[in-house]
Amino acid sequence: MARLTSTEFARRLRPETLVILPVGATEEHGRHLALDADTIQASWAAEQVARAVGGLVAPVLAYGLCVSTRNYPGTVSISFDTVRALCGDILEDLWRNGVRRVMVLSGHAGSLHMAALRLAAEEAVGRHPDLRAAVLSDYEFAYDLRGTVVPVDDGHGGMLETSRVLAVQPRRVRGRTPRSQGRPPRFLVEAKPERHFPSGVIGDSGKATAAIGRRVNRYVLGKLVELAGQI
Amino acid sequence: MARLTSTEFARRLRPETLVILPVGATEEHGRHLALDADTIQASWAAEQVARAVGGLVAPVLAYGLCVSTRNYPGTVSISFDTVRALCGDILEDLWRNGVRRVMVLSGHAGSLHMAALRLAAEEAVGRHPDLRAAVLSDYEFAYDLRGTVVPVDDGHGGMLETSRVLAVQPRRVRGRTPRSQGRPPRFLVEAKPERHFPSGVIGDSGKATAAIGRRVNRYVLGKLVELAGQI
Amino acid sequence: MARLTSTEFARRLRPETLVILPVGATEEHGRHLALDADTIQASWAAEQVARAVGGLVAPVLAYGLCVSTRNYPGTVSISFDTVRALCGDILEDLWRNGVRRVMVLSGHAGSLHMAALRLAAEEAVGRHPDLRAAVLSDYEFAYDLRGTVVPVDDGHGGMLETSRVLAVQPRRVRGRTPRSQGRPPRFLVEAKPERHFPSGVIGDSGKATAAIGRRVNRYVLGKLVELAGQI
Amino acid sequence: MARLTSTEFARRLRPETLVILPVGATEEHGRHLALDADTIQASWAAEQVARAVGGLVAPVLAYGLCVSTRNYPGTVSISFDTVRALCGDILEDLWRNGVRRVMVLSGHAGSLHMAALRLAAEEAVGRHPDLRAAVLSDYEFAYDLRGTVVPVDDGHGGMLETSRVLAVQPRRVRGRTPRSQGRPPRFLVEAKPERHFPSGVIGDSGKATAAIGRRVNRYVLGKLVELAGQI
Amino acid sequence: MARLTSTEFARRLRPETLVILPVGATEEHGRHLALDADTIQASWAAEQVARAVGGLVAPVLAYGLCVSTRNYPGTVSISFDTVRALCGDILEDLWRNGVRRVMVLSGHAGSLHMAALRLAAEEAVGRHPDLRAAVLSDYEFAYDLRGTVVPVDDGHGGMLETSRVLAVQPRRVRGRTPRSQGRPPRFLVEAKPERHFPSGVIGDSGKATAAIGRRVNRYVLGKLVELAGQI
Amino acid sequence: MARLTSTEFARRLRPETLVILPVGATEEHGRHLALDADTIQASWAAEQVARAVGGLVAPVLAYGLCVSTRNYPGTVSISFDTVRALCGDILEDLWRNGVRRVMVLSGHAGSLHMAALRLAAEEAVGRHPDLRAAVLSDYEFAYDLRGTVVPVDDGHGGMLETSRVLAVQPRRVRGRTPRSQGRPPRFLVEAKPERHFPSGVIGDSGKATAAIGRRVNRYVLGKLVELAGQI
Repeated sequence: MARLTSTEFARRLRPETLVILPVGATEEHGRHLALDADTIQASWAAEQVARAVGGLVAPVLAYGLCVSTRNYPGTVSISFDTVRALCGDILEDLWRNGVRRVMVLSGHAGSLHMAALRLAAEEAVGRHPDLRAAVLSDYEFAYDLRGTVVPVDDGHGGMLETSRVLAVQPRRVRGRTPRSQGRPPRFLVEAKPERHFPSGVIGDSGKATAAIGRRVNRYVLGKLVELAGQI
Repeated sequence: MARLTSTEFARRLRPETLVILPVGATEEHGRHLALDADTIQASWAAEQVARAVGGLVAPVLAYGLCVSTRNYPGTVSISFDTVRALCGDILEDLWRNGVRRVMVLSGHAGSLHMAALRLAAEEAVGRHPDLRAAVLSDYEFAYDLRGTVVPVDDGHGGMLETSRVLAVQPRRVRGRTPRSQGRPPRFLVEAKPERHFPSGVIGDSGKATAAIGRRVNRYVLGKLVELAGQI
Repeated sequence: MARLTSTEFARRLRPETLVILPVGATEEHGRHLALDADTIQASWAAEQVARAVGGLVAPVLAYGLCVSTRNYPGTVSISFDTVRALCGDILEDLWRNGVRRVMVLSGHAGSLHMAALRLAAEEAVGRHPDLRAAVLSDYEFAYDLRGTVVPVDDGHGGMLETSRVLAVQPRRVRGRTPRSQGRPPRFLVEAKPERHFPSGVIGDSGKATAAIGRRVNRYVLGKLVELAGQI
Repeated sequence: MARLTSTEFARRLRPETLVILPVGATEEHGRHLALDADTIQASWAAEQVARAVGGLVAPVLAYGLCVSTRNYPGTVSISFDTVRALCGDILEDLWRNGVRRVMVLSGHAGSLHMAALRLAAEEAVGRHPDLRAAVLSDYEFAYDLRGTVVPVDDGHGGMLETSRVLAVQPRRVRGRTPRSQGRPPRFLVEAKPERHFPSGVIGDSGKATAAIGRRVNRYVLGKLVELAGQI
Repeated sequence: MARLTSTEFARRLRPETLVILPVGATEEHGRHLALDADTIQASWAAEQVARAVGGLVAPVLAYGLCVSTRNYPGTVSISFDTVRALCGDILEDLWRNGVRRVMVLSGHAGSLHMAALRLAAEEAVGRHPDLRAAVLSDYEFAYDLRGTVVPVDDGHGGMLETSRVLAVQPRRVRGRTPRSQGRPPRFLVEAKPERHFPSGVIGDSGKATAAIGRRVNRYVLGKLVELAGQI
Repeated sequence: MARLTSTEFARRLRPETLVILPVGATEEHGRHLALDADTIQASWAAEQVARAVGGLVAPVLAYGLCVSTRNYPGTVSISFDTVRALCGDILEDLWRNGVRRVMVLSGHAGSLHMAALRLAAEEAVGRHPDLRAAVLSDYEFAYDLRGTVVPVDDGHGGMLETSRVLAVQPRRVRGRTPRSQGRPPRFLVEAKPERHFPSGVIGDSGKATAAIGRRVNRYVLGKLVELAGQI
């Protein structure tokens, strides 16, 4: 939408127009994926969905809350309250503009990051009951394919994510990161979460291919378009 | 910097590396300039300065605080506290990464927007006295040319700004907006600031040319590079 | 721990002592379960785990953040920030007392409620890296049994939860609530989430028995004790 | 009220129903009184008043703001803002439920703790002028009896409080704490308030009896019921 | 202190110098006392104490939190958080200047107003254990004389306060306000507290004399000087 | 206005009455000007304007946000948020009183200080669109005279400011401060801004005269009265 002028935007927007807000992150993704991997994926998916459903894409947020990777070089994490305020302010002013249907689509899937976006949306809907919103990471769909397309224990910067970036922006992939064994345990809160995945990735990026990425992305887009129909 | 991987970033960063954080806005700019005009200019200038001084560019912030244009279609303004928190969090985590020299470079020049960025930087420097920072809008230099290159009363979305966008991203300029006569009075606080410039611009965009834009941009870059040397 | 005097507490506490903070809710649970169903379960599980591992139980928090049931009679929900502040303050002062291992154990499993507790714990560990913590709802273990002990689509106030309360405090169960068909859709944010489960429960409480509850509770306790060993 | 189901609560509540919110603390009370002494007293008094006037008791808050005892083992103090937010959120959601008359009854009588509760209630009444509320500690009545039933200089954990706990929950009293001489001076703010009453109590707990406690409690209940009639 | 220059202040201040921060209010005081009655009294008392003990007086705060008079014309009340932040910031920067002994002396005695000042001082002392502070209203001493010099039920804008203003700034007293019968009940929180004292004063200002005021002020100053010795 | 009683204020205030809120600072002004120089100037100007236009003057705020002088002795700076809250609360309660036209007139001209006042006024007007406000420092007019009446590089505590204080309150001027050469660079954020003007002033106070001050003040008052007509 930001490529439009004010006048064009006013003409283009209808009450039923879906606006998609892509949310990325500036986050360590091993030694083989660029820091903006999540931003690229969210932007790309948002553009595709908007094209499919006749929606508009708001400018991407390129920073998010990164908990488990926060101690790695290159991660630039913002706080829970900042993610929440940013998403909340944007929803508020989209509403002022007459937008009534929003999808907040995050490329980063960290649970507190997602909670901040969700909380902002709950609060916006609480203030404006005529606003309809969905908040999700496209990884919540992509991970449906763990166990079939990629191994069950694949995760951050692994085979699935590397494949998706290869399919969309291959220049953001450089070499591969040695496979990690672990992942941060499910319920523990720790000062140094990186000790559980010292290479900075979870899974085996060496098995990633653009073909797998395209297959995953097709699946994810199908789910996103379906969800868009429910908002 | 976000095109780098974590490992590349760690290798590339030195204590003396300047990181430039470009800040844009999603804001009405008349009927002829796209909503992301400020984002484009800030990103472009940041890239040029980084190239000139061997610095890095952090991912752009595409939303800012818009006071006088807040009631127009297409403006998506975020609050003072959100601008401040966003800038403050990023400075904090850049510092954690070892960054010690930062230029916050805004394409939007609204006074409260700039105050929010400045306040965030003051607070970051207060917490980390070894951090050196500058906060400015490139318009603070560009407006030096009012009275010579462009008329004295040129302003938001006018001849100067339109020329600059023409020089950098001509597809973001479409037609022209009728010339406005006024501007919001200097000290008054009003519920409807747009009544002082009903066309949404200040100045005469019809006289803009890419050549003028290039001349302005050359001047601004010279000043920015000079400032970079003082940080 | 609150039944101890100050002196007894000081004597009893060792650096390795686990303190369990049970978190409940005052929340609608259909027409057959009392509003304090979550509080009862969290308190009970906390006592059992403390007994098993030689830990202490802090006074229970009887209010939580209830999103999907917030519009029902009897739900008394507190905000995200209040849950976070409450949990954060308690962790802070437990730390001052010399406590270094904490389990925050919630009977209520709402995702934003859990995020508030988790965020508080992350912040506490950020301030005090020598603090070790786990944050979870015992339902994150109990739901492992969906698909075997109870149906896959069982949920809030359903067969599983009713069975657990029957096993622990049967007087809090009165009659049954008609079976609901739906549940709030996964990613949508809505002003009236209760329209997706108008009876206020998800699942068939009529099939609940104390025997099933005991079986679930045995399983959950085993998992909790195992987790306690990792903190 | 939390023993009721949602449906029972909706049936039971009338606009004129008084809801009593008991507020306790987890606080050092010398070497002879349990940490939950204030919670026990507030809960007990709330139940008695509810019975007398046909009211409902909301789940107790077991943590409060403890200033003068904050450095003792076993005190788990929460901040002013947390007490205020907790009380404010509960009043807000009680109001949503249709409750219009509330008594906030604290067993802990610290002046900043009481101010936090009072402030929350003022703010709630400011938002909802149809809400009627009273905020008090039952010690504000109990201390009427200083100079007659107990000595003038009796205070925290002393003869009066020990007697009241003996009357209600004798198992929470163990032995006695040596009599303290002093108390924190009236207007001074100090980093180590405990130096003014090193034994952690004010007064002579050795003279406490259950009979005195019953007499005090009778008096306090009489006053509370009278106050309930004015809300 | 504000009449000094920076250099003079630096020379004059010693670690043991007491700084007095007078706090007033802009508040209705019936039809006979000026809105700045509290400011005048606090300033006057602060000057007297400073003279007696060789202290310095910081610039007065002319606004406070007014709860029971908040609906009257002329009251300009600021919020609890603003009073707290203002007092806290000033204490913080006095500390930076090397001040280690402070008396916060309020002419307004409202309980939440005093709690805000007290809380700010507790927080400042928490941050800086070498700071010693007292927080009080001079009315906490003046009211010792109720029952002897003035009637027991005298209060806001009554005989005592009017006498004190007559003694110090007689031009701020104009005529008299009819005697009120009531006062806001002790524990109730109400949307319209003024209905309990419709004339805006509590007590009989018609009996006020400058002689009584001088007597009260002498007593209060004696107590303040004594307290100053304990800080 | 604070010299009036509640009744007099109610009678005196009309919807069209302008209320002026003077804002000062407690701030280092070299070795020759008192710490309250800004407070004195703001109070004086406010009184003059009120007299000229039949307005009322609210009690002065004697503390502000001082950034570049914050490390000097005698500066007592309050935070951005406190300035904003204080100004915002006062505007809110003036509005409750029926005031609809306000001039916030600051003697201190620091850019973040002014932004805090401006932001508070924007927020107040956002809540109450019938409120009209202006926010400015009288120095924004006084500095029009740089280059004619005083040198171009005159600034904080220099010839202009010293002259103005001489004209109004000559006892606040004592001797002179050696002339400084520099000033803090325009866009840099630094931990020690005072290193750019080590004498604490900018300009040559030795050339100040009361006659110049009167001339400046006449000019400033003319401008202020003109502005008052536009509010």
